[in-house]
Amino acid sequence: MGVAPEWRFDPLTGRRVLISPDRGDRPIHPTGDCPFCEGHEAETPPEVLAFRTPGSIPNGPGWRVRVVPNRYAAVRLDVVGTDLWSVLPPHRPEVRPHGRSPGVGVAEVFLECPHHETAFRNLSQTHAADVIRSWRDRLRHWRDDGRLAFAQVFKNEGSAAGASVDHCHSQLIGLPFVPPAVADEVQAAGPGCVFCGWIAAELGGPLHVAESDAFAVLCPPAPRFPGETWVLPKVHEAAFEALGDPEADELASVVQGLLARVHRAFDGPAFNLIIKSAPFRHAGPYHWRIEVLPRTTSTAGWEWGTGVLINTVFPEQASALLRAAG
Amino acid sequence: MGVAPEWRFDPLTGRRVLISPDRGDRPIHPTGDCPFCEGHEAETPPEVLAFRTPGSIPNGPGWRVRVVPNRYAAVRLDVVGTDLWSVLPPHRPEVRPHGRSPGVGVAEVFLECPHHETAFRNLSQTHAADVIRSWRDRLRHWRDDGRLAFAQVFKNEGSAAGASVDHCHSQLIGLPFVPPAVADEVQAAGPGCVFCGWIAAELGGPLHVAESDAFAVLCPPAPRFPGETWVLPKVHEAAFEALGDPEADELASVVQGLLARVHRAFDGPAFNLIIKSAPFRHAGPYHWRIEVLPRTTSTAGWEWGTGVLINTVFPEQASALLRAAG
Repeated sequence: MGVAPEWRFDPLTGRRVLISPDRGDRPIHPTGDCPFCEGHEAETPPEVLAFRTPGSIPNGPGWRVRVVPNRYAAVRLDVVGTDLWSVLPPHRPEVRPHGRSPGVGVAEVFLECPHHETAFRNLSQTHAADVIRSWRDRLRHWRDDGRLAFAQVFKNEGSAAGASVDHCHSQLIGLPFVPPAVADEVQAAGPGCVFCGWIAAELGGPLHVAESDAFAVLCPPAPRFPGETWVLPKVHEAAFEALGDPEADELASVVQGLLARVHRAFDGPAFNLIIKSAPFRHAGPYHWRIEVLPRTTSTAGWEWGTGVLINTVFPEQASALLRAAG
Repeated sequence: MGVAPEWRFDPLTGRRVLISPDRGDRPIHPTGDCPFCEGHEAETPPEVLAFRTPGSIPNGPGWRVRVVPNRYAAVRLDVVGTDLWSVLPPHRPEVRPHGRSPGVGVAEVFLECPHHETAFRNLSQTHAADVIRSWRDRLRHWRDDGRLAFAQVFKNEGSAAGASVDHCHSQLIGLPFVPPAVADEVQAAGPGCVFCGWIAAELGGPLHVAESDAFAVLCPPAPRFPGETWVLPKVHEAAFEALGDPEADELASVVQGLLARVHRAFDGPAFNLIIKSAPFRHAGPYHWRIEVLPRTTSTAGWEWGTGVLINTVFPEQASALLRAAG
């Protein structure tokens, strides 16, 4: 909790960047000294959610999944006074683009298992379902809290995907406004749901990877990375946090199955897993999905200069590799 | 020259991605077997430009800077028939967003020195100025050719910045349309030139790093990376390719000086260098610049999910470090 994070706005390019010095202090932990393992609860802030053995004591051993505030938070709620929250967007001061504004928001970490496992695909299915329910429950919490407009749940597995700790974990970052790129995509999804028609048309087609009763696993039409794959509910639903307990069990099986395919088909890549869900209180026709982005290619001057991504594998090639890796 | 590259458009997100299987075939060259060194001219396609010792023979030794088509080109001119070029944008078939379209364009590599040097800052100033003139000359070539709408010149130094060969080199990729992110930024620059006023206001201020007679070196208001710095001409000019020979000499000194500062202040980082210049035949108020992006932070699930970048160093801290590293 050193220097407060700030949004900086660039009027020359229209770009807004979050500057967060505390994140630069994140240590790289050797495996033998893992702050996310059971018994090291004192090394993280107090838990905000935990799935525990009955009778176990908060912030002690006995948990299956544990959620804590991020010690190296990119955004914080305490950088503004409580009076801010009485003003609704777009009139909240941090929402308008201008030179500087406080880095308001929340950042949480999901410790996905008490033992030192580094691959989500290796967790038991029951355990993976608990992780998925913890994502859902924290999204519900912040939706109901009312102060935030949007939260991103994401998981970085492997250092090439940006992970600084190898123990299975994921993160939530919530903001009082909707990031412009997210707002643009949500806008593009309507009117009507373009996803519903697309899923029905692609199941069994060239982009098909797998399916279950409730979920479709498809490569997207314009993948950004070799092997990029999406998991989508077959029935229309804008918000991930609407997920029921039985669907969480099924989703765990589907996601772990996909990650095992990606591991085999693309030589065990680092990857990002992203929950794309509608902003809180969104009323339009969005359709949530989970994106898996294998990080086998890098971004260079071309991508940073033009915003155009270059992939090396066609989606129908990737889906064939992933089908064969089942 | 295997599978032809294609643009793929995603109607679900509005995203367009270039799929180029040939780029996936790029080998990683060990230093002792460098295809960019003098004497290895047969390992690259025939040169399209070279600054040579008088009397030396094209595609043989005797060059200072040599430009060749990229053997692992992300885009190519031969993927469409010549009749395409008789149709102007936006009616050219590859310009409209739709499912698939050919990956039309050019990709060239600048071999920046005949000897095996890996750092642009270590080239002689005369040599660096030749490199800058070669960038300018190839931009002029493609501007005058008339088939392309935009070209990006960029340099990746260090593997963390995406370089697959360590010998000093840079690249040009040109397209028959302007990438959406570039079009958006060019649009944001007008009416009037926001850059001219910004440069005048910031010189000597908190974002000031250095200056010469013709150029300002400033940290941007919302840097994406720790130590991101821009070099801008003080006199208004939209197109980099308008650069004169004396200005190229001065620019070489300014850019090499900046790269030496970045190397000292940020622990010798890999970096991308990007020429931000107006699209060809652009008539509006753009102001060219060179961006230097040190790549000490990585992109992870948060950035790919939201488009929001998190930096760990405020621009006024970065500029102070860079000033002190002079």
